[in-house]
Amino acid sequence: MPAMADATGMQTLPPLCAPFPENRMTFRSPIKHCRECGTAVVYRIPDDGDTKPRAVCPACHTIHYENPLNVVGTVPVWRDKVLLCRRAIEPRLGKWTLPAGFMELNETTAQGAERETDEEAGAQIQMGPLFSLLNVSHVGQVHLFYLAKLLSDEFHPGYETLEARLFGEDEIPWDEIAFRTVKTTLERFFADRKAGQFGLHCVDID
Amino acid sequence: MPAMADATGMQTLPPLCAPFPENRMTFRSPIKHCRECGTAVVYRIPDDGDTKPRAVCPACHTIHYENPLNVVGTVPVWRDKVLLCRRAIEPRLGKWTLPAGFMELNETTAQGAERETDEEAGAQIQMGPLFSLLNVSHVGQVHLFYLAKLLSDEFHPGYETLEARLFGEDEIPWDEIAFRTVKTTLERFFADRKAGQFGLHCVDID
Repeated sequence: MPAMADATGMQTLPPLCAPFPENRMTFRSPIKHCRECGTAVVYRIPDDGDTKPRAVCPACHTIHYENPLNVVGTVPVWRDKVLLCRRAIEPRLGKWTLPAGFMELNETTAQGAERETDEEAGAQIQMGPLFSLLNVSHVGQVHLFYLAKLLSDEFHPGYETLEARLFGEDEIPWDEIAFRTVKTTLERFFADRKAGQFGLHCVDID
Repeated sequence: MPAMADATGMQTLPPLCAPFPENRMTFRSPIKHCRECGTAVVYRIPDDGDTKPRAVCPACHTIHYENPLNVVGTVPVWRDKVLLCRRAIEPRLGKWTLPAGFMELNETTAQGAERETDEEAGAQIQMGPLFSLLNVSHVGQVHLFYLAKLLSDEFHPGYETLEARLFGEDEIPWDEIAFRTVKTTLERFFADRKAGQFGLHCVDID
């Protein structure tokens, strides 16, 4: 999606927000209209000292920022097994994931992770510490996973999940994991468990 | 700002996004128009299994989500002193802060923290580990601060900063700190330094 600039330097398409067709969840289309008044926006560097092109409303002058989104989830553990969910929705329908989803307004990262674990797996947990923070900067996301202790091995998957199941380390369907952040988090989890000490893992996913 | 619902359950104002007048930075006005086609949106629970009211376009059916924003920054250290910046902009003009700002698309949390340190203080740093993650859920923000080592004690503040200065622990202007996340991070920093070990601090700010 090339950015097009007219003689004033205004761009009709944003250079910072490219589609990522492999993964529908991560796609964000450019802002076309002002959220305040509905006028078509133009992309330009605002006059307030900013250095990046933004969607600016030529009518009411609102500047529309686009910022990364947080995805929050858990590594839910039952004895020596980890809970994975098989996705009932795109992207990566049919693939396995740790329970996770977009953080909402009015919740903390841990509350969001607990909510997603309930929504996707119907799993009751006791939340543990933050375990991984993974930057997926090419799609404008930060993924955060918390360790969690399952309070039961009964699950009630929601509409986003085909199946919720416990896996030992040697049972993990590594080739069927939905997202690289989940695969990395699982790898670090089993490595830390082997080492007998759980740390915080900050990882950049290219 | 009360939410108003008509007989169809559609809400004309969102219940999840209240203004927070004490702090202009944190205010996000409700979405009024569709970013795709400019039509006035309605607030209702989408038909896709969602459970929360969203701004939905009655013309092109786009659902507009609003999610928390990340603020990223550093605790820049020079010998036994910490760098603070006096704010040249609202909110909290004239108050002192650690260098920090909104994370942008196409950068990692650490890259954003380093960029903000350069933009606000003109400070050159060597980035250290993540030190604090603070949820400010009532304004839909997550603040992340990294430890950083200053490579020089010369600063070149940007337009958002009146003054950048090094402070020893007994010189910190505690009553003039701009944000509670900054105050908490500084308190934890000095406590950890006294204890001789720096950890990760996850804190919820009410």
